[in-house]
Amino acid sequence: MLEQRKPSAFDLASYLQDKKELVEIALDGSLPIVRPEKIYEAMRYSLLAGGKRLRPILCLATCELLGGTEEMSMPTACALEMIHTMSLIHDDLPAMDNDDYRRGKLTNHKVFGEDIAILAGDGLLAYAFEFVATQTQNVAPQNIIEVIARLGRTVGAAGLVGGQVLDLESEGKTDITAETLTFIHTHKTGALLETSVVSGAILAGAGSEEVQKLSQYAQNIGLAFQIIDDILDITATQEELGKTAGKDLAAQKATYPSLWGIEESRNQAQQLIDSAIDKLADYGEKAAPLRAIAQYIVNRKH
Amino acid sequence: MLEQRKPSAFDLASYLQDKKELVEIALDGSLPIVRPEKIYEAMRYSLLAGGKRLRPILCLATCELLGGTEEMSMPTACALEMIHTMSLIHDDLPAMDNDDYRRGKLTNHKVFGEDIAILAGDGLLAYAFEFVATQTQNVAPQNIIEVIARLGRTVGAAGLVGGQVLDLESEGKTDITAETLTFIHTHKTGALLETSVVSGAILAGAGSEEVQKLSQYAQNIGLAFQIIDDILDITATQEELGKTAGKDLAAQKATYPSLWGIEESRNQAQQLIDSAIDKLADYGEKAAPLRAIAQYIVNRKH
Repeated sequence: MLEQRKPSAFDLASYLQDKKELVEIALDGSLPIVRPEKIYEAMRYSLLAGGKRLRPILCLATCELLGGTEEMSMPTACALEMIHTMSLIHDDLPAMDNDDYRRGKLTNHKVFGEDIAILAGDGLLAYAFEFVATQTQNVAPQNIIEVIARLGRTVGAAGLVGGQVLDLESEGKTDITAETLTFIHTHKTGALLETSVVSGAILAGAGSEEVQKLSQYAQNIGLAFQIIDDILDITATQEELGKTAGKDLAAQKATYPSLWGIEESRNQAQQLIDSAIDKLADYGEKAAPLRAIAQYIVNRKH
Repeated sequence: MLEQRKPSAFDLASYLQDKKELVEIALDGSLPIVRPEKIYEAMRYSLLAGGKRLRPILCLATCELLGGTEEMSMPTACALEMIHTMSLIHDDLPAMDNDDYRRGKLTNHKVFGEDIAILAGDGLLAYAFEFVATQTQNVAPQNIIEVIARLGRTVGAAGLVGGQVLDLESEGKTDITAETLTFIHTHKTGALLETSVVSGAILAGAGSEEVQKLSQYAQNIGLAFQIIDDILDITATQEELGKTAGKDLAAQKATYPSLWGIEESRNQAQQLIDSAIDKLADYGEKAAPLRAIAQYIVNRKH
């Protein structure tokens, strides 16, 4: 009966824990404090505030799946988290979402002031590129440049920034379509998750067909991730989320549950995950981590 | 008597005008407007607001001096201006210097709002790296990575961001030393001017000794540039500057004239320029543009 043991024997919790520890160590070592100390402290405050480290882990896992090493992918994994952190710091600012808590701690501007928070975001963004350019090992220079190009596109107006702009514009509007909502999320959340996976593939030397397939996996889990985020904003408590709950409702933001209802939103998320997992069929057991991460995204509670 | 014609026969005004026109065309073409239009309009508003384009011109001129082409250097030249523009947009924000005018126009946040201004800066910063990575032609990938690494370092906490933090911390203090003031300016202004020159050299394939020499040229003109900026803040009118004049005095900022007086500040600036020009001795007539730009920095009226 041994042959029938299911792939779910893979222990995702340990896997995530192990990778997260590696990422924490790398992030901690990435940014020593020098003069002027205050800005490094502000950058470190948010960068080392915990979180799931899902983006770095996706990058490490994809690179590993294709035979790449941690030396190849860890600098980019760290850069992805620097970029993610920067987007959180700036989104939380009073001029944007005006949020006081993030990952269970006061937001950056509540601790360091708005001026330093803006600069800490800028500093993390710039450092992400410097870090990839100076720290990546054993990767062909052309592939490093490709990763940098994709990171840039992912943060800019064609990615995170563009998604946030449309999100801000949509606030308080009652006639947001599913198409606009999907534009917002594919840019604001999906793009960086996709780049996490794709950059891992590129660093491992993947060809364009392989990159394409993994990109589709990532797009699907990215959208599912956002649908679940919207559901959790309604159903989870502030304690579970580590940030203000019920914020979308209060801000009259269009969300998937507001368009489709909670039940149908869950169905859509599960379909996206199933489709993501289909893309991994060729990799067999080696893809157990990416498969389990996809399932985790719909099952998570925060 | 023809042999005695001096190098000053070089027509700097035409040179700057020609290069500026090339840069304007390249910048205009670099950023087409797509959805969401507002963010691209905000980015273009500040990016195409004029200015001397000194950073791009230094990059182009240095690359040309060493035998490089415009194809090699123009993407980085544009990126330098994107980065410079981003730093101006963020520095002008209410939470920072709170300025209403820049280059004779309303500042970005006065036109588009604080949220969009923060995002326009982020978008320009990210795009700068994407643009260098995707557009640079005929340069060895390793040199492109080196330029990206230096651009990152120049914007981040080790450069512009760090300088701005110390500048904010020093405001209103009456005991700022010349050493601290120089730290602020070498980071806030000098670093990007230095990278403008050095990146032009790296793109042209310069060796480390040549990079070192040109870097010293750039450090000297960078500091002289800031000393003259401080003097102009006192002596020029708002109309000449295109931004609020007398701002440093009003903000009780330490400046070189406040430490040394105007006369001595001018002397120091001229000494720095003379020393910068010395570094170009080996290049003969080919270095006429860089030599003339150095002189222009002390003689400019805005």
